[in-house]
Amino acid sequence: MIHQSPAFSFILRLSCPDQPGWLGRISSVIGEVDGLIGSVAVVGVHEDVITRDMVISATNEEHVKKIVERVQAIDGVSAISMTDRTFAMHRGGKIEVRSRIPVKDRDDLSMAYTPGVARVCRAIAEDPDAAFSLTIRRNTVAVVSDGTAVLGLGNIGPRAAMPVMEGKAILFKEFGGVNAFPICLEANGVDAIVETCTRLAPTFGGINLEDIASPNCFEIERQLTEQVDIPVFHDDQHGTAIVVLAALRNAFKVTGKEITNVRTVISGAGAAGVAIAKLLQSAGMRQIVLCDRRGAIHRERDQKTTAVKQWIAENTNPENVKGSLGDAVRGADVFIGVSGPNVLSVDDVRRMASKAIVFAMANPDPEIDPDLARPCAAVVATGRSDYPNQINNVLCFPGLFRGLLAVQSRRVTEPMKTAAAAAIANVISDDELKPDYIIPSVFDRRVGVAVAQAVARVAVETGVARHSPQEADVLWPS
Amino acid sequence: MIHQSPAFSFILRLSCPDQPGWLGRISSVIGEVDGLIGSVAVVGVHEDVITRDMVISATNEEHVKKIVERVQAIDGVSAISMTDRTFAMHRGGKIEVRSRIPVKDRDDLSMAYTPGVARVCRAIAEDPDAAFSLTIRRNTVAVVSDGTAVLGLGNIGPRAAMPVMEGKAILFKEFGGVNAFPICLEANGVDAIVETCTRLAPTFGGINLEDIASPNCFEIERQLTEQVDIPVFHDDQHGTAIVVLAALRNAFKVTGKEITNVRTVISGAGAAGVAIAKLLQSAGMRQIVLCDRRGAIHRERDQKTTAVKQWIAENTNPENVKGSLGDAVRGADVFIGVSGPNVLSVDDVRRMASKAIVFAMANPDPEIDPDLARPCAAVVATGRSDYPNQINNVLCFPGLFRGLLAVQSRRVTEPMKTAAAAAIANVISDDELKPDYIIPSVFDRRVGVAVAQAVARVAVETGVARHSPQEADVLWPS
Repeated sequence: MIHQSPAFSFILRLSCPDQPGWLGRISSVIGEVDGLIGSVAVVGVHEDVITRDMVISATNEEHVKKIVERVQAIDGVSAISMTDRTFAMHRGGKIEVRSRIPVKDRDDLSMAYTPGVARVCRAIAEDPDAAFSLTIRRNTVAVVSDGTAVLGLGNIGPRAAMPVMEGKAILFKEFGGVNAFPICLEANGVDAIVETCTRLAPTFGGINLEDIASPNCFEIERQLTEQVDIPVFHDDQHGTAIVVLAALRNAFKVTGKEITNVRTVISGAGAAGVAIAKLLQSAGMRQIVLCDRRGAIHRERDQKTTAVKQWIAENTNPENVKGSLGDAVRGADVFIGVSGPNVLSVDDVRRMASKAIVFAMANPDPEIDPDLARPCAAVVATGRSDYPNQINNVLCFPGLFRGLLAVQSRRVTEPMKTAAAAAIANVISDDELKPDYIIPSVFDRRVGVAVAQAVARVAVETGVARHSPQEADVLWPS
Repeated sequence: MIHQSPAFSFILRLSCPDQPGWLGRISSVIGEVDGLIGSVAVVGVHEDVITRDMVISATNEEHVKKIVERVQAIDGVSAISMTDRTFAMHRGGKIEVRSRIPVKDRDDLSMAYTPGVARVCRAIAEDPDAAFSLTIRRNTVAVVSDGTAVLGLGNIGPRAAMPVMEGKAILFKEFGGVNAFPICLEANGVDAIVETCTRLAPTFGGINLEDIASPNCFEIERQLTEQVDIPVFHDDQHGTAIVVLAALRNAFKVTGKEITNVRTVISGAGAAGVAIAKLLQSAGMRQIVLCDRRGAIHRERDQKTTAVKQWIAENTNPENVKGSLGDAVRGADVFIGVSGPNVLSVDDVRRMASKAIVFAMANPDPEIDPDLARPCAAVVATGRSDYPNQINNVLCFPGLFRGLLAVQSRRVTEPMKTAAAAAIANVISDDELKPDYIIPSVFDRRVGVAVAQAVARVAVETGVARHSPQEADVLWPS
């Protein structure tokens, strides 16, 4: 199956004789090698030669080269330039810092900067919490990474992690109205990262940890939460868990299953898998088995293991299920994949309980091809945007932090996470709900608001909020 | 002398009978207590009662109260609300983070975020310097402070320093097209700050140190410059020094003096004073005496002293001038004040050499009232915007970093600083030059470009640039 993606799209500027038939010929050649033409625009005609920009999507970098070579090989056609659209989008960085206020004359400067700013500084010196209304702490989050577990690329370091954190900052703004700034740290180990974030805390209203490898991510989040007075949230763990719980809630409605009765197998015992297990437990699920590459994690597996796997062995798998992933999923109601490509077979799905729920979220290649899983399961979801039911963290973190910041919450709590999941799930009404629509689109603007309101409400009710917003525009500033 | 300032301006919403004479009566009362009315706008008329917003400037917070009380005391007038314009401007923070690219559909997301972003991450993992073109390092500076020496307020801590650093970020963007982000650190001492900045370096293209107390600021800058591969610049030192040198160059032209022959007294032996002395020396000045509260610093003063004062004693004051500031300025050509209010008397100025140059830059109250100094000096400059010849760092740092980033400079060097000073000075042509116009306005848009070009040129010529810009739009991106 060929998946041309905008991620591998490019603009090919080429010229050819300005006569009928040439564009068709070029398009045919591109089509023959599976290039997908998005748009064609004339950029100039000069002495019977016409120059066009063609936007073409391919499947990978080799494929891009092949398409360009084939077009260049057409007698009479010359390729003038090739622009990689993805790289063009990232060039110079994807975010900017802008003033929210005018500074066009001396009066503006005297209020925004010296001497007027001294009055604001003094007010905060007298009452440090005033910083939450008089500075960017009101609405700004740090997106912190050490670059040790970036996407599926592994430990590529803080410099190479930057494009992801900038992208995250864009999503924070677009879907939550939250200002987010990437902080990629050259820092080794738990202590260095905790210490740095603690020092940075006066600048921000919240900290979103991102793409930090397990097991460090657990300890960093735990220590940091103790040491700072602003919410700390490791999105790879809890963002994923919240959206999975949201999708599951609706999947249970569609299938008539109950969270307290189902058996669930999670493939992947990393940060996301463990966080999903914990959140599902606090939502009432009892039967959860986590599998790593060696199969089900149970109490009698070898004891030379990490603290995380130790926790898993002691706190999940009450029936002490053993064996491979295939063995574990036998009779299970739910499969949740946060691991790697093609670890689940069609036969595995067939051997699950009736009305099976399969969330195959490995990216870009899921644990099972969703087209193959669908005939044997009641509900199928993936992490990809080109299939129904995309389980995407962006449904959670922008609204979550929007809600936390609105009430100046001191921390993120378990009740907030389950409330956020419920809010996401409830965006889809019972009438709309169906097997291929259990989770809202990332572009559904109701999601961020619903999550923010739910989280802010829990923060106020549970006493971790500094502030109770009286007005709607505080919850969602323009 | 009464100086009403926009820094103490407020919007007074008040209602009174909608009859002739009332507005005049209110205005008279405000005028009687020296309130300065900026603008008046009707916001509503209801049953013979008219409501207006009056913008009024005062001199300090007591004065604001007095004005409001006097207006409220007028029979028939009721004050409905009072909005402090300065606090209103700062509320919610003064800067925001915005996307530079559209994210309106799935195609945009596939290029800006997953899966496309992985290609960009890989490119940087293979060539870390690619981060300088493919991420915000291209055009982003950290404005770092520990809040130990904020404006004239002293050690008010990182939270209370934030409004200044946000203001600085605005100036970076407005006057240099540079994205700057405030980083206020809860960190004690040299090591903690150096270490934190070193860890943060992969995120930024440059580091602007700000409002860090002496002597830590010297050592932090020195160590950090050694440890990171991006330019580090302590603006309180070098920004001030560069703009002083720029102003002095033109003051010398106006007075016919030569930098190599003049005698200069600097009042204030803190970070700015020392940096000014060093830069003036590298520009060719030989006779410089620094004074602190105890008077001239010379080689025979007590030896129980700081490393900085030791350096001053050994490297300035070649004639070993002793005594008070008043003694030191006798016969001097130049007075540079970076100290406190009213330390220089009119008699002191009278005893300076003919065609004396007086830069009284303490803020908000200068070392000598410029109106008193002007009759006895050839050139007078201050740090204030309400007198001619404002010596303001904003003339330097935005263009300086613009130039550094344009060529991806690895560091800031002495030749760049003198080049920047010359660029600022040369914005004023010899024809335009006169005693009350030796330094361009902060709103003169030519300054930033001139400084950027000068700095970029030196960076390329001296081999500290990673990159040589071929196009003008690289030097000044929109």
